[in-house]
Amino acid sequence: MNLTFREARPTDLERIVELIADDAVAARRTGTYGEAHVRGFEAIAASPDNELVVAEADGAVVGVMQLTFIPGISRNGASRLLVEAVRVDKELRGQGVGARMMEHAHDRGRARGCVLAQLTSDKQRPDAHRFYRRLGYAQSHEGFKLPL
Amino acid sequence: MNLTFREARPTDLERIVELIADDAVAARRTGTYGEAHVRGFEAIAASPDNELVVAEADGAVVGVMQLTFIPGISRNGASRLLVEAVRVDKELRGQGVGARMMEHAHDRGRARGCVLAQLTSDKQRPDAHRFYRRLGYAQSHEGFKLPL
Repeated sequence: MNLTFREARPTDLERIVELIADDAVAARRTGTYGEAHVRGFEAIAASPDNELVVAEADGAVVGVMQLTFIPGISRNGASRLLVEAVRVDKELRGQGVGARMMEHAHDRGRARGCVLAQLTSDKQRPDAHRFYRRLGYAQSHEGFKLPL
Repeated sequence: MNLTFREARPTDLERIVELIADDAVAARRTGTYGEAHVRGFEAIAASPDNELVVAEADGAVVGVMQLTFIPGISRNGASRLLVEAVRVDKELRGQGVGARMMEHAHDRGRARGCVLAQLTSDKQRPDAHRFYRRLGYAQSHEGFKLPL
């Protein structure tokens, strides 16, 4: 598959929301495409520490992920790469698209001086957990969330 | 205890590194105070999306945490607050300092428009997990890390 990566454009946003929502765990909480997503997109575009990346195959957006580059004091002043909202088109699962997206994420992290990648995955996603372990990730932490 | 919160200053950094390192899990990986921590501090200070916060009691720094405000598309365009590197002086454990720090973190998150707080905690820290559950956090995710 001829896969390319680039930063998302405003014209990709409706498709991105569709990809994020096309998922048993996230469907209800993503909402239908609208103003709130546009504001989120604009905030990501305005932030020097965030990138919304799409994977393209034959001119179609087939994957999305958000990268956040986080400076820090822990781990000897390390910067870390946070990966969120990783999604691959359901029609293209099992063809290595996700693994190539994560390679791209890691390349972007290294380019930004990050020495650690981190992410969380809902406990309801055992397939995703296997995927990240296969990529070499250590399943070392518990992840907590609280509505504010 | 008369506890106040403020953004960290360069003169706090050596104490902050001491607090972060004073911990069975993190001691080896924090390193001893030096240039790498200074660069991390400067990168946090330069980022509009990050705050390094200290808790002070009677003029002494007794706690530290890093806050990152992250825009997003998921969860209907929600911004989220990420809390990292939460530490309280060992001499002051069990007196509610950590809970008051987290309240301050949540206030800062709401002030920045975040509707969700998230954090991860090493699986070797069952006491911390109880602490976050007591604050109302859902232990809903697995946390993954990969050196880059």
